[in-house]
Amino acid sequence: MPARSKTPVRNALYAQSGGVTSVINASAAGVIEACRRHGKRIGKLYAGRHGIVGALTEDLIDTSKESAEAIKALKWTPAGAFGSARYKLKDLDKDRAKYERLIEVFRAHDIGYFFYNGGNDSMDTAHKLSQMGEQLGYPVTCIGVPKTVDNDLPVTDCCPGFGSVAKYVAVSTREAALDVASMSRTSTKVFILEVMGRHAGWIAAAGGLAGSKAGDAPHVILFPEIAFDEARFLARVRESVEKYGYCVVVASEGTQNAEGKFLADMGSLDAFGHVQLGGVAPTLAQLVKTNLGYKYHWALADYLQRSARHIASKVDVEQAYAVGKAAVEFALAGQNAVMPVIVRKSSKPYRWTIGSVAMAEVANKEKMVPRDFITEDGFGITPACRRYLEPLIAGEAYPPYRNGLPDYVRLRNAPVKRRLKTDFKV
Amino acid sequence: MPARSKTPVRNALYAQSGGVTSVINASAAGVIEACRRHGKRIGKLYAGRHGIVGALTEDLIDTSKESAEAIKALKWTPAGAFGSARYKLKDLDKDRAKYERLIEVFRAHDIGYFFYNGGNDSMDTAHKLSQMGEQLGYPVTCIGVPKTVDNDLPVTDCCPGFGSVAKYVAVSTREAALDVASMSRTSTKVFILEVMGRHAGWIAAAGGLAGSKAGDAPHVILFPEIAFDEARFLARVRESVEKYGYCVVVASEGTQNAEGKFLADMGSLDAFGHVQLGGVAPTLAQLVKTNLGYKYHWALADYLQRSARHIASKVDVEQAYAVGKAAVEFALAGQNAVMPVIVRKSSKPYRWTIGSVAMAEVANKEKMVPRDFITEDGFGITPACRRYLEPLIAGEAYPPYRNGLPDYVRLRNAPVKRRLKTDFKV
Repeated sequence: MPARSKTPVRNALYAQSGGVTSVINASAAGVIEACRRHGKRIGKLYAGRHGIVGALTEDLIDTSKESAEAIKALKWTPAGAFGSARYKLKDLDKDRAKYERLIEVFRAHDIGYFFYNGGNDSMDTAHKLSQMGEQLGYPVTCIGVPKTVDNDLPVTDCCPGFGSVAKYVAVSTREAALDVASMSRTSTKVFILEVMGRHAGWIAAAGGLAGSKAGDAPHVILFPEIAFDEARFLARVRESVEKYGYCVVVASEGTQNAEGKFLADMGSLDAFGHVQLGGVAPTLAQLVKTNLGYKYHWALADYLQRSARHIASKVDVEQAYAVGKAAVEFALAGQNAVMPVIVRKSSKPYRWTIGSVAMAEVANKEKMVPRDFITEDGFGITPACRRYLEPLIAGEAYPPYRNGLPDYVRLRNAPVKRRLKTDFKV
Repeated sequence: MPARSKTPVRNALYAQSGGVTSVINASAAGVIEACRRHGKRIGKLYAGRHGIVGALTEDLIDTSKESAEAIKALKWTPAGAFGSARYKLKDLDKDRAKYERLIEVFRAHDIGYFFYNGGNDSMDTAHKLSQMGEQLGYPVTCIGVPKTVDNDLPVTDCCPGFGSVAKYVAVSTREAALDVASMSRTSTKVFILEVMGRHAGWIAAAGGLAGSKAGDAPHVILFPEIAFDEARFLARVRESVEKYGYCVVVASEGTQNAEGKFLADMGSLDAFGHVQLGGVAPTLAQLVKTNLGYKYHWALADYLQRSARHIASKVDVEQAYAVGKAAVEFALAGQNAVMPVIVRKSSKPYRWTIGSVAMAEVANKEKMVPRDFITEDGFGITPACRRYLEPLIAGEAYPPYRNGLPDYVRLRNAPVKRRLKTDFKV
């Protein structure tokens, strides 16, 4: 066996990007623990404070100041322990100064590895950064770590973060449905739960897991992929109330009509000056009230659904950790501009492994719910969809509790001493 | 020892009333298991299908058709397994026909015991029914079983149902706060969670448990007991964002101004024709946006909070079961027109026992959050409040899971053969 050439020790940077999830910190733990195990090749592991913004402003966190116990606790702590950012870099020619700044910061701190934990936008950024490094003579190994509750990344079978929000939505739908059924004789007959997923209906689809046989809630699922038809929706609600005594609706925030207009942007809600989505449920409730006269309730889970680590999917937590760990291993194996993906080997029993894809294949692409996962009438999920979804919510991974509350960790997040004299405004 | 006089075996009726909770079925299990243990004195235990409505319409359920396993599973199944009803009986002179009908149904089915599981309205009804039975020469032992997420019953230290919604709100606030903190650098700076509690702010107060030290979320709690002052609210939100980078608000649905006008009834929401509460969060969000310009998110948990058996408080589940069991024991001990209550013996360590109160003392009264449980500025909870609340959310009581979802029971709910020839419209 020939003597291995000695690889220089380089530092690494980890950054969280975009909307956080209840398991993104499990990916962070995967990255950090793997880096610590490979201390002969990776020196310091830094984290960007609020992701790429921290990298641009040279506001770095020294993860080596955190204890092994704190890092372990990341596996059961939701949201972004180092802070995340919604900050999209544009093309190399348009945002050249920013890419150059990143390389400048990397050079100042001898960062040879960049682990970017995000969705398709982030993969685009990381991919471009690796190109810019080459151009500027400072090559950086850029590895993506997939994350998104929306489950809309291509290639990977599923996205870490999704399984837990899916479990939250399925459990909440099942629970709220029992509540409505209890009340329906004299009170609420229609309940609407609005869930995330602006473009892809994966989270709404997960609501379908709440029921298992005909007549079970939810009786209506509204997907962004299926054009909303008011008359058909109302007919189905009425039918459900007449047949079962009540109706449970799970509606994606991205529900839109045939012209592509979001329901959330319609009707009286405009008076709020709403620009964010988040008004589908009240809009639907108003339709029901006006046209059918039923008493309704609605819920908008918003951040609760994606931060609900207390009801996370065990499979999701494991996969989130695994992609973080794999990212480091890929980097050390000499791969670049790739992202670990989940590969499904079988659904029953569920078996999965980690694969790899070039970032360029993931960047800026979205995976929608395929038509054959949605029932012909557009209001439910098919057995194929159920087979796909069910393994992703399997198992519980409860956090430890103290005084009746989950014992989530707050890191020290000690700053790294700045080395650059120039500031950078973001 | 003198020979005991033989007490005739009588049947019993159990009915669920008002908004359901995640542990009301644990009370049902307490009642049912206690009745089964006392088969020599209590014959059949019936349940009203949809509560008092089933009693009025002679639509009774024979609980003896349910297996011991099914009854055991009620301990971890949320909502009302027999159906509940929002159906208030008025005074004896105004609703005399209804009280007479109830006694007629009781007589037809030899019902000598009535266990009514509800809030203050229900205690009023049960109390009057026991009076009417006397008047009509058909005495019925009427025992209340306390239940309300609002925690607003007097005398009892707390109400079964509250501890679990309190835990849900505290956990959700802690989780969502981590999420907002992650995003605050470039995105959401203000998060508003609207919770139940139309008149009493107990549930909003529970949100205060999410934080434990200065600066922790929630930064603002809005109680119905404290008049909402727009300028002070906005100043506090701004202060929190400037100091901590973000602001988390927990707002009771009953938040109202000095004139007693509900925030939910204000502003653009009127355009919906909303008569239900449930618009405090968007109203506050709009205020924040217009006056401070911060990006916001808001959530409305609605039924999710009171049906969230997956995150129920162990103490709450135990107390819910205990009051159901005690109700039967009180009845068999010859008590009448009483309700079991929770008596706190000490807070640290938490010790409690079951006491008893006359229904007349509970009926139609509400217990508000006392002023000394709310910080002087009106936006937080005091140490005294924390001492009171903390034991109530203690311990987890997870339901069993199957295929990634809680394995909740659905009872057979077999009907009892009718004996009356007359129908009764409700």
